Amino acid sequence: MNIGVLGAGQLGRMLALAGYPLGNRFTFLDTTGNPSAGIGDVMVDTDQQHLTEFLSKVDLVTYEFEHLPVPLVQAIEEHKPVHPSSEAIRVCQNRAEEKALFDRLAIPTPAYRLVESAEALEAAVRELGTPVVAKSVTDGYDGKGQAVIKDPANAAEAWRSINHPRLIVEAFVDFVREVSIIAVRGRDGQVVFYPMAENLHVDGILRYSLAPMPDLDAAVQQTADEYIRALLDELDYVGVLTLELFQARDGSLLANEMAPRVHNSGHWTMDGAVTSQFENHLRAIQGLPLGDTAARMPSCMVNVIGQEGEPARLLEIEDAHLHRYGKGERPGRKLAHVNLMAPTHEALVEKVRACAALLPGAPAPRFSFE
Amino acid sequence: MNIGVLGAGQLGRMLALAGYPLGNRFTFLDTTGNPSAGIGDVMVDTDQQHLTEFLSKVDLVTYEFEHLPVPLVQAIEEHKPVHPSSEAIRVCQNRAEEKALFDRLAIPTPAYRLVESAEALEAAVRELGTPVVAKSVTDGYDGKGQAVIKDPANAAEAWRSINHPRLIVEAFVDFVREVSIIAVRGRDGQVVFYPMAENLHVDGILRYSLAPMPDLDAAVQQTADEYIRALLDELDYVGVLTLELFQARDGSLLANEMAPRVHNSGHWTMDGAVTSQFENHLRAIQGLPLGDTAARMPSCMVNVIGQEGEPARLLEIEDAHLHRYGKGERPGRKLAHVNLMAPTHEALVEKVRACAALLPGAPAPRFSFE
Repeated sequence: MNIGVLGAGQLGRMLALAGYPLGNRFTFLDTTGNPSAGIGDVMVDTDQQHLTEFLSKVDLVTYEFEHLPVPLVQAIEEHKPVHPSSEAIRVCQNRAEEKALFDRLAIPTPAYRLVESAEALEAAVRELGTPVVAKSVTDGYDGKGQAVIKDPANAAEAWRSINHPRLIVEAFVDFVREVSIIAVRGRDGQVVFYPMAENLHVDGILRYSLAPMPDLDAAVQQTADEYIRALLDELDYVGVLTLELFQARDGSLLANEMAPRVHNSGHWTMDGAVTSQFENHLRAIQGLPLGDTAARMPSCMVNVIGQEGEPARLLEIEDAHLHRYGKGERPGRKLAHVNLMAPTHEALVEKVRACAALLPGAPAPRFSFE
Repeated sequence: MNIGVLGAGQLGRMLALAGYPLGNRFTFLDTTGNPSAGIGDVMVDTDQQHLTEFLSKVDLVTYEFEHLPVPLVQAIEEHKPVHPSSEAIRVCQNRAEEKALFDRLAIPTPAYRLVESAEALEAAVRELGTPVVAKSVTDGYDGKGQAVIKDPANAAEAWRSINHPRLIVEAFVDFVREVSIIAVRGRDGQVVFYPMAENLHVDGILRYSLAPMPDLDAAVQQTADEYIRALLDELDYVGVLTLELFQARDGSLLANEMAPRVHNSGHWTMDGAVTSQFENHLRAIQGLPLGDTAARMPSCMVNVIGQEGEPARLLEIEDAHLHRYGKGERPGRKLAHVNLMAPTHEALVEKVRACAALLPGAPAPRFSFE
C-alpha cells in the first residue's frame, strides 16, 4: 500500500521507517519548500499545483502536522481515505473547538475564557486571577503565539504581542507534572493505550518524556484511558491521538491539549514499547490489527535540540538508541532524539543525566518522582 | 555519512532502515537489473558504466552480497574505504580458501577433499566414506551448486550436474543441530558477539533461527566466540561476520562456512537484541562505538518464503514483528520474515508453530531442544 503523508518532517520520516517493514511505500507532500524527511518520494508543492499528482500516487492519506487548511483536507477526502479525518484536524487546530469538545465529554480542563479584544482579555485576567496563559486559538505550537500574564495591567501588551483576533485565556494550574496519554483506534473501533509519559518542557519545548512513570496510580492511567477513549469515539477517529494533561497534587488530571497524530512524547515507544506509535498508527489507518502497547522496560526519550553534540559519545551509553532526523543545526530546532532504557527507574534517571551532560545546552532533568 | 552498498536486495534495505536513524544516507549499486531495496538512491548498473558516479556519491562502501568480482572490489578500495575488505570477500567466496583459513586457525571443520575431475571426486567419496556433500568451490549459496553423494558410483553424475571445474567434497557430519555465531569487529579492533542461534533449514534454505538457545553450554558459546574472533583478527575485519557451524552430539563445533556480511540467521536481532546486526554493522564500518549484543528475551525469526500469506493474520500474534521486503511472490524466494519473542522458550515455540501454520508451505519447526 502506498501511503500519502501531508508534511515531510521527522514525524513523516519515522512513519516511513516503521512502514517499510509492513510493505508500505511513502509519498510526502511538502508545502513548506523545506522538506527534511530524507526518505520516500518527496513532492515539494509550494505552488499548490501537485495535489492531483500526489493523490494519483497514493492509496490513503495521513499527515504529520495538523495545521493544515481544513478545506484542503476535505477536498482530499473526496478522492482518497484520510485518517485521521478532517473533522479531527478541524477540532485539534482550534483551541476553542478543542475546549468545547473536552467540556462536552466532561473531560476536566483548566478554567478558561475566550476573548476577542484587549479589553476582554484584561477582564478575563481579572476574573480568572493571575497568572494566566493567553494563547491564540489557532496555529500556535511549541510555545509560539502565547504569553503568560501576571498582572491585568499587562493584558494590552500581551494582546499586541500575540497579535491574533481570538485568544483563549487559561487559569494557571498548580500541577505536579505534565503528562501525556497516547492511544490508537483502529478502523474497527478497537482502542489500545500506551502507558502515560511524564514530560519535561523547557521554554515550551519538550525535552524529556519518561514512561512508564514509577509512581503512577493505576486508577490515574485508567482515568486518562477513559478521557482519550471518549475523544476517539466521539470523533470516530482512526490512528494515533495524543492528549497532553496536567496532573495536580491530588493526582487528578486536567486536559491541556491534544494532537491528532504521532507525538514527540511517544518517541520512547520506538525502542521502549512492544509496538511503536508509528507502527501502530500505520496499522490502524490500514485496518491491520493493532500491536501491543506495553513498555518493555523503563524508558526515557531525550530530545536533541539546536546542536547535535557528538553522536559517537551518545552511542557509548548502554542501551541508548539514537534517532537523527537529517536536519541542519539551528537554535531551538529538534534535530534528533535519544531513547534510553534501563531495568530500574533509578538506573534510567542516571543514564538520562549522563546523556544530558553530552548535549550542548541541555538542562539536567528533574522528574516529579525523584 | 553517505554509505554505498554493493547489491540492492533485502539486506541492503534493512541496513538502510537501521542507518537513517544514525544520520546515514544510502546509495545502492545494483548489477542485476532487478533491485528490490525500495529505499535510498538505487543505481542500476548492468553495463558497468556507473561505478565512477556511484563512488562520487559515497563516503565509504559496504556490500550485502559477497559474490562480487574481487578485482572490482580492489579497484573500489583504491578510491574509497571498503568494509569488510576485498580480502574478506576473496576468502569467503571460495570454499577452498575458506577451509584453508579454518585449518590455519585450528578451527575444526568436517573432513574434506578438493577435486578437479570426476575421477578424483569418486576417489574422494571412497576415502571419506558415504554420504558426502560435493560443492563447487565458488558461487553456490542456499543449496545451489551442490549434491549429496550416497554411492561412489554416482560421483560422475554429480560431477556433471554441478558442472564446475573445482569441487570441495565434505564428509557428512552427524550433527545435532546447525548453529551460527555472528560477531562484529570495529575499526579499532573491538569485537562483540551475539548469542548463538539454532538454524533450521529446509531444502537448503533457512526457515527458522532461534536465539538464545535454552540448552547451550556457556563454554560452547565461548568456543564459538574464540573461533570467530580468530577469523576477524586474522582478516583485520571491520563489520559483521557470520560463521555457520554444526554442533555434534558431544557439544563440539565444526565450522561449515562463513559470510562476510549481515546474515539471515541474525535477523532476530532486529527485535530481539539490544542492538541489531544491521545497526552494529553500520556502527562498525563508520568507526562508531559498537552496541550491546545481548538478547532482550527468547526470540525466533521465521522466514516467509515463496508466498506471503496474510500479513494481517501474522500481526495478530502478540509480540510478532513483520519485516516485508517489497518483493513479488515466487517459489523459493525470501519475501519477508517475522520475528517472534516470548518470555519463555516454551511460549516461544508455541508462537513459532502458530506463525508457521499461517504461512503457506511452511513446515512445522522442530528444534533440537524440544
